[in-house]
Amino acid sequence: MWLLPFLDYASVAVFALTGALVASRAQLDVVGFIFIASLTATGGGTLRDVMLDRDLFWIVDPMMLGVAALAALVVFFTAHLLESRYRAILWLDACALAVAVPAGVAAATASGMGWPVILIMGMVTGCMGGLMRDVVCNEVPLVLKQGELYVTCAFAGGVAALGAEWFGLAGGLALLACAGVTFTLRAGSLLFGWRLPVYRPRPPRTLPPKR
Amino acid sequence: MWLLPFLDYASVAVFALTGALVASRAQLDVVGFIFIASLTATGGGTLRDVMLDRDLFWIVDPMMLGVAALAALVVFFTAHLLESRYRAILWLDACALAVAVPAGVAAATASGMGWPVILIMGMVTGCMGGLMRDVVCNEVPLVLKQGELYVTCAFAGGVAALGAEWFGLAGGLALLACAGVTFTLRAGSLLFGWRLPVYRPRPPRTLPPKR
Amino acid sequence: MWLLPFLDYASVAVFALTGALVASRAQLDVVGFIFIASLTATGGGTLRDVMLDRDLFWIVDPMMLGVAALAALVVFFTAHLLESRYRAILWLDACALAVAVPAGVAAATASGMGWPVILIMGMVTGCMGGLMRDVVCNEVPLVLKQGELYVTCAFAGGVAALGAEWFGLAGGLALLACAGVTFTLRAGSLLFGWRLPVYRPRPPRTLPPKR
Repeated sequence: MWLLPFLDYASVAVFALTGALVASRAQLDVVGFIFIASLTATGGGTLRDVMLDRDLFWIVDPMMLGVAALAALVVFFTAHLLESRYRAILWLDACALAVAVPAGVAAATASGMGWPVILIMGMVTGCMGGLMRDVVCNEVPLVLKQGELYVTCAFAGGVAALGAEWFGLAGGLALLACAGVTFTLRAGSLLFGWRLPVYRPRPPRTLPPKR
Repeated sequence: MWLLPFLDYASVAVFALTGALVASRAQLDVVGFIFIASLTATGGGTLRDVMLDRDLFWIVDPMMLGVAALAALVVFFTAHLLESRYRAILWLDACALAVAVPAGVAAATASGMGWPVILIMGMVTGCMGGLMRDVVCNEVPLVLKQGELYVTCAFAGGVAALGAEWFGLAGGLALLACAGVTFTLRAGSLLFGWRLPVYRPRPPRTLPPKR
Repeated sequence: MWLLPFLDYASVAVFALTGALVASRAQLDVVGFIFIASLTATGGGTLRDVMLDRDLFWIVDPMMLGVAALAALVVFFTAHLLESRYRAILWLDACALAVAVPAGVAAATASGMGWPVILIMGMVTGCMGGLMRDVVCNEVPLVLKQGELYVTCAFAGGVAALGAEWFGLAGGLALLACAGVTFTLRAGSLLFGWRLPVYRPRPPRTLPPKR
């Protein structure tokens, strides 16, 4: 499982970029950039490691924190060059999701968990860092955006990894399948509006709809 | 302590219903329903188990996750039948509180904790799942609703359990007392407006109150 | 390291005061005061202890909870005497930050961590309790206030402790330096508007700025 540290590095770097971009929308100072970037980058994986009772990945390898800080600095000095920071956040977040979900799946597999916990850890690692970023910075959580696939992508990625493993693919290929499915679905949702049917209430009473 | 898994199941199922109802107010898709339902259902107990350094209850028994997902699916297909979803959330949340508090008390007792920690774990297990649900979904946390008993019910339930234990009642009866006190107080607050005196500032200065 | 419990006590007491003051702004009842005060007082240290895999400081010494509850009661009965509760929150929070950061640094040092983790634990212990308070109570997190030093103070305090240690000062003096630097910077920011350069976007497009 030499892939796991690599996936962790990649997801830390890309999530840190999204965190720093959100910090730039909130006009924080440079330490605030590093703080939000680190929270986003390590939030999901920290929660995963605490729940699996593993050593935290950034305590095992504190270079992760350096990567997050570096990403924050890069954004601090270059964010104004972007056409649309919000678009950049969306697409970087999609990339980060696509590496964080396999990272969560791999960690849970390495801890010898069963498939329900593997699925959950994929979703937690993928979605929770971004959720913390959005809750702390008062953005509408991407998790809750109506009519977009988000948690669903993480879920489908986890299912793809389990399916590939079940069909006998090597661990690395299964994680690749996981990343591919996650990113494809999320990109399709951003580009072409792919979505699941949303809950849409029938009017619950016969009163006129003026609420 | 055969009661503990049963209490955990019941609180997972009922908290999942409330989470899914909140998801329906936010018009999420079906995976979003399952996500919010699972967060609500497992949030308090997960925090309790992490703080007590126990194995997480849903890693020990992943069927819990199935229960939460099933409850989310049921709500996804039937929520429109409800007269008022908000009333349903309030009452289901009251039931879930009344089973989650004894679950927390029982877990802390089983871990050999002293009474202050037992009280806290009752409150954490009862209130934190709903708090996470409300923070993530941008609802006003029930914990903070003015003039309603909420944390107070969890606190009183914990005190009731400790008192019953102290008077020599068997563990099961103490938990029953805990659930009864918690639900009675919460129901009384919802139906009859029972409340504790709220902090109401005297005007802090002699300026006219036009702020 | 006889200082660590003392620092924990002091930060619990002062953070509890700020939590109770925020609860008074939300007009909660007395149990709500205790809940928010305890969350604020123990949030950062709990997160630190969970991440370092130590026994939680308030499970080791439940008197901490009594201190937080007492502080909440004091505020419940006296908050109306204050001229400006918001100013009191700001200054008490500055004091709490200045004791919580060395508490985090000391705990991480006692766990034998390297310097990046020591810095992080100082920031987590100092900033996270207040962040939880503000997220739960829907205040604008102090962490995010534009043009104020906050996380920066915690960071600088941690650097001061590491520097003092490196120059061979005894542990207690290093922690004193840490508290001094943290408080001085935060007080300077509140009194004289000290700040770091904030991210200020150059206009990203040539469209007229009417958004």
